[in-house]
Parts: sequence; C-alpha cells; structure tokens
Amino acid sequence: MADGSIPSFKAADLVIQLSSALQTKPDVTGFGSVFTDHMLTIEWSATEGWQAPHIKPFGNLSLHPACSSLHYGIQLFEGLKVYRGDDHQLRLFRPTLNLDRMANSAKRACLPAFDQSELLGCIRRLIEIEQDWIPHSGPASLYIRPTFIGTEPTLGLKKPAHALLYVILSQAGSYFNNEAEGLSLWADPKYTRAWKGGTGDCKMGGNYGCSLSAQYEAVDYGCQQVLWLYGEDHQITEAGTMNIFLHWINEDGEEELATPPLDGLILPGITRQSILEITRKWDEFKVTERYLTMGQLCSALKQQRVKEMFGSGTACVICPVGHIVYQGERLHIPCQDKTSLLTSQIVKELTDIQNGRTTSDWTLLV
Amino acid sequence: MADGSIPSFKAADLVIQLSSALQTKPDVTGFGSVFTDHMLTIEWSATEGWQAPHIKPFGNLSLHPACSSLHYGIQLFEGLKVYRGDDHQLRLFRPTLNLDRMANSAKRACLPAFDQSELLGCIRRLIEIEQDWIPHSGPASLYIRPTFIGTEPTLGLKKPAHALLYVILSQAGSYFNNEAEGLSLWADPKYTRAWKGGTGDCKMGGNYGCSLSAQYEAVDYGCQQVLWLYGEDHQITEAGTMNIFLHWINEDGEEELATPPLDGLILPGITRQSILEITRKWDEFKVTERYLTMGQLCSALKQQRVKEMFGSGTACVICPVGHIVYQGERLHIPCQDKTSLLTSQIVKELTDIQNGRTTSDWTLLV
Repeated sequence: MADGSIPSFKAADLVIQLSSALQTKPDVTGFGSVFTDHMLTIEWSATEGWQAPHIKPFGNLSLHPACSSLHYGIQLFEGLKVYRGDDHQLRLFRPTLNLDRMANSAKRACLPAFDQSELLGCIRRLIEIEQDWIPHSGPASLYIRPTFIGTEPTLGLKKPAHALLYVILSQAGSYFNNEAEGLSLWADPKYTRAWKGGTGDCKMGGNYGCSLSAQYEAVDYGCQQVLWLYGEDHQITEAGTMNIFLHWINEDGEEELATPPLDGLILPGITRQSILEITRKWDEFKVTERYLTMGQLCSALKQQRVKEMFGSGTACVICPVGHIVYQGERLHIPCQDKTSLLTSQIVKELTDIQNGRTTSDWTLLV
Repeated sequence: MADGSIPSFKAADLVIQLSSALQTKPDVTGFGSVFTDHMLTIEWSATEGWQAPHIKPFGNLSLHPACSSLHYGIQLFEGLKVYRGDDHQLRLFRPTLNLDRMANSAKRACLPAFDQSELLGCIRRLIEIEQDWIPHSGPASLYIRPTFIGTEPTLGLKKPAHALLYVILSQAGSYFNNEAEGLSLWADPKYTRAWKGGTGDCKMGGNYGCSLSAQYEAVDYGCQQVLWLYGEDHQITEAGTMNIFLHWINEDGEEELATPPLDGLILPGITRQSILEITRKWDEFKVTERYLTMGQLCSALKQQRVKEMFGSGTACVICPVGHIVYQGERLHIPCQDKTSLLTSQIVKELTDIQNGRTTSDWTLLV
C-alpha cells in the first residue's frame, strides 16, 4: 500500500518537536509503567482527512469528555517490541503483521484506514529518537504501543468523525512475576472472552475490559489468569491475554503441538503465528490448529499424554502453564518450566532472530 | 446505602467553581452535541480513595496516553433525563434505577463502588446550576450522562488504581430523524451484540464499539439500525441500542406484549422496565418477558398476528419499527407510527409522569 492508494498521513511530513527535559532512564524492572520522552500523534477528521504526524514530548492527551473512545469503546491498540541485537543494531520483530492486524481492528472499529508503511516509517523515526531507551543487555526490550481512538466529541453511537492515532513506548521487563513455577489458570465457563460475531479476533479495548472481573475472580481462586472456555463442550480458547498451546500425545497417539484455530474467537497473535511457523519448519511433530476441549485435556492428563502447555504473547513471549483449576479440581500440568526442550528451543530460535544472531526476514532494521 | 457503609465521596463536600463565560443557549435540535456550561468530576485512587467532588466549567479531560480506559475499555456510562414539568418543577425520572445499574456496571468493570445517593446529590446540584438549559416547552429535555473510566496510567491489563467519575449534560431533542416512517432494521446473525458470560447486561463501552460496524453494514442494506439476533434459533434480543418489544397475538391466540428476558444478554433498560410495569398495571393483555425468535416473528407476520413492534430507550423513549430486512426479505411490520393506541398510550403515561401531570414516585424533584 505504499502506492498511496489510501488517503494517509506521510512519514515524510513528520513534524518533530524534541523535549527539552529528558528523563533519567531508570533500570528496567516491570512492564508498561515507564514511558520514554516522546510520543507520536496523528489526528484525523472526516472533513480534513489525516493531518501531518507529530513527534512531540510525551504528555497527557486533551480529550473532550464526550469523546467516543471513552463512552463507546471505539478504540484499539497494538503491541510490538524493538530489540537491540548483539551487533548493537535495532530490530523490529515482524512489524508488518502488527500493522496488518491494526488495519483489521480499525475496520472493525469503524476507524479510518491509513497507509501502514507510512505508520511504520513514523514509528521507526520515533524509535531512532528514543534509541537510548532500548536496553543494551539482557532480555529486556522496548515495548511499542500504537493506539487508535475515536475522538468524536458528541454523544450517540455513530462512526467517529474525529480520531487520534498515537504511539507510546514503554520499558518492557518481565511481564509475569513467578514464571518459574508456571502460570496458574482458572477455567470456568461462567465468563466468556469472545464469541462468534464479536471482536475476539481484533485488538479492541472492549475485549479486555470485559475480561477483567473474571481475572480477579481467578485470583480469588488462587490463580493468576483465566483459561477462557467457549461453548457447551468447554473449548479452550485463550489464557489471560495470551494464545494457548498444548504439546501432547493426541487421541491418535501422535506427538502434536496444538493451538485453537483462527475462527473469529481467537486473537491472531504474532508470537502464535511465529511458533507455528518455527515448529512446522522443524517438522519434528505434528503442528495443528484445532479445537481442544477441557474433556480432551482431562483425559490426556489422566493418561499422562500431556507434555506441556504454554501461553504466548508479545509481552510475555512464552509462559508455561503450571496448573489449571477446573470444576473444583486442581489439574497439574507437567513440565512447567522454561527448561523444557520445546519451549526453550522455541524461545532460543525467537530470541536469536530478535537479537540478530540468526539472519531472518522476520526482523526489520530501524 | 446512605449509611456511609461504602467508602464514598460526599455531595456535602462539593467544590463548586462557576464558569465566568456562559454560552448562549442554542435551540434544541439534535441529541448529544451541545453541552452545558459545567460538569461534575470526582477522582478516585486506590491509595487515597475518593476525592471531593468538583463542579467546574465544562472542558477537556487531561488523560495519560496509557490510560486504561483508552486501551482496555475500562469504562461505563449511564443515560437519564431531567424534565421541566408543566408546573415548572424539574423532575428526574427513576434516577435510582440508573444508579443501581451504574453500580452493577462498575462492579463488572472492576471500578470502585460509591454511595449512589451521594452521586445523586451531586447530580442534583449540577442540575440546579444548569437549570436554565432545561427546555421550557415541547418534548425536549436535558440528557444526563454519568461516565466512569479507569485512569490507571500504566499498560498491562489490571484493576485500575486510578479512576474518574464524571457527569456531563447535553441538550436532547429527537434521537432519530424519521420516526414517522418507523425504524428500519437489518437482522443478520453474522454479528452478535452480547453473549452468555459477557457484558451485555452492563452499560460498558465495549458493547457499543463492537456493534458499530454492524450498524454501518445495516446502512449498506438500506436500514437504520441492527436487529440483534442470538443463537442458532435467531432469537431477537435488542434493536440498535434499544430494548425491543413485540405486541402481537401469540402462538396460543393471546394478545401479548413481549420483550426478551434479562438473561445476561439484555440491557436492563429503565424505559423497558417502566413499559412492563405500566402495561402490567393496565392488565389489558398478557405482558411477558420471553424469548422471541425470527421464526416466530415471520410466522406471526404471515398469519397477520403482529400488531406492532417498537424499540425503547432513554434517548428515543419509544421508537416504532417499520420493517426488518432478514434473509433477503423485507418484512413489513404493521402499525409503525406513534398514533397506534398502545404506543401512544404508553408515551402519554410516561410523559405525564415525567412532566408532573401525573403524580408518581417514579420522579424525583430536583
């Protein structure tokens, strides 16, 4: 879409105003609480179209109190990371997949289209300016959060005539605290994350807001996250805000790595897709997008056919599952640490690409 | 809950800063685009609790760009109206029902509880200040929009440690443009508004954002709003952002006013509840909360058993349905104007209460 067929802002039109008061960069500890010195903002209106993109000092947004993003959830986001390689070069991991997904979400949210390559150009410029924020060593990286909100300043549900696309950057250390023990999941069909005809395959805010009280009910049951079930047969769909994988000997006695198919309920995760592509390339076991039910999991656990389960996502990369609380039982999931052959091999292959130790067209130099 | 058992802000602590530049009040034409001169804001944080409520000049909110309301849809709203009676007194219509629903939505969104009577006290004070905005004649009123958003300034889905409750007031004329012809609805099971285990019974923003693209697909089919279906049997659930009523001769030959039951999918509308209570009091026909499928509706239309259908909501009050586009057919719904005996009687009874012509404990004097 670099041909300009979509009316869009242009990276070449960037207006850059640098901050005169740069922060001291703290050590990277958590996720998402420390932001860099600058942000990217791009305004759109139905009458004026896209305005020139701006990079300016990080600061609060001034929003009309009737803003459609605050009332009607007309909002979406993306999440990707930029890594500093062993060769000191900065690499984005498969950013075009994030931008494709963002375009899908925008269509679903009735927000305007834009030229994705122009947004990528603006993000690269922002990263260049903020490059000192990208850690020089260790597993930490810089998290990029493109956000797109309706800013229509009138009440009544309608397609917004005003919108704001912005990008903020945040330090990204470890996402969960006790990965060593494996994540504990609460599986109860009383809450549903996504449904046919809904927005489960888009990264829209409403998917998350409606999941929060279930997460805290999970905490009441001594668990960290929700294992989201769907339908009468308790299909396994996602875990917390992650895609879910099961490595097992399936019903037919085959070694299989399985994850639910992209049927509209499942977020098409970039890490999910990368894991599928990496393990299919290995060709060491069956790799399948298929439905998985709690009944199938329970049978496999009884018959000791489960090798491991893990969540995947940009923030956490891979997060092994330690146990699941389901129908009053605490199901122990084997091999819940990162030293397992499979997850450690996947993590190594992914991080080797992200850090430039392996040459790959999955990374884009900044 | 006036006993103070819930930690809450207090109306008695209101800090009032009046605007020095009042607007000229324009004639009331549309809905939700002209706001009054002042707004109510109340801040909360996990560490400090509720702060004193403020009434201050209407203006933009200053929000952190990572604000959890903008990313994760942690947001909810309410909608109610204040009417100027023939006796010039100002009346709120069943405000405690709105505040009860707001408390339910807040629980579902993991936003903090508050004393509802204290919020009502603050809203009454705001209305007193803005009373000149309430029209002196005609069907227009002043629309009250309580809004409650998470303002947690960090990324990562979690219960917000910061929140903002605010109330804005807007002129409220006619909501739809061509009520005379009856609303046209597009019924297609490809989109789902709400689902079991979701948030369809709460007034959270995500319910609306995910419905918007369906509404515009409805427009592509020449319709104004979506008739939301659910499940394999195409249950009728809501119309646009309204509850839906069917007045018909049912399968058993009985005259019946029917609306779907509050099973978690349906927003518990205040107008819906009022219509049920008014018509049950009349005791002239059967009044039922029951499932209604498109199959049942189509059969009834063929057999000329449908008297009328209408949507109900605070913004529109009652909105007759003119036709439904379903599976390639354009279904004509009879009696689609406000001159029908039933809808005109309901509207008269409701407006007589709202305007103080009938004494009722459904109104609260400001």
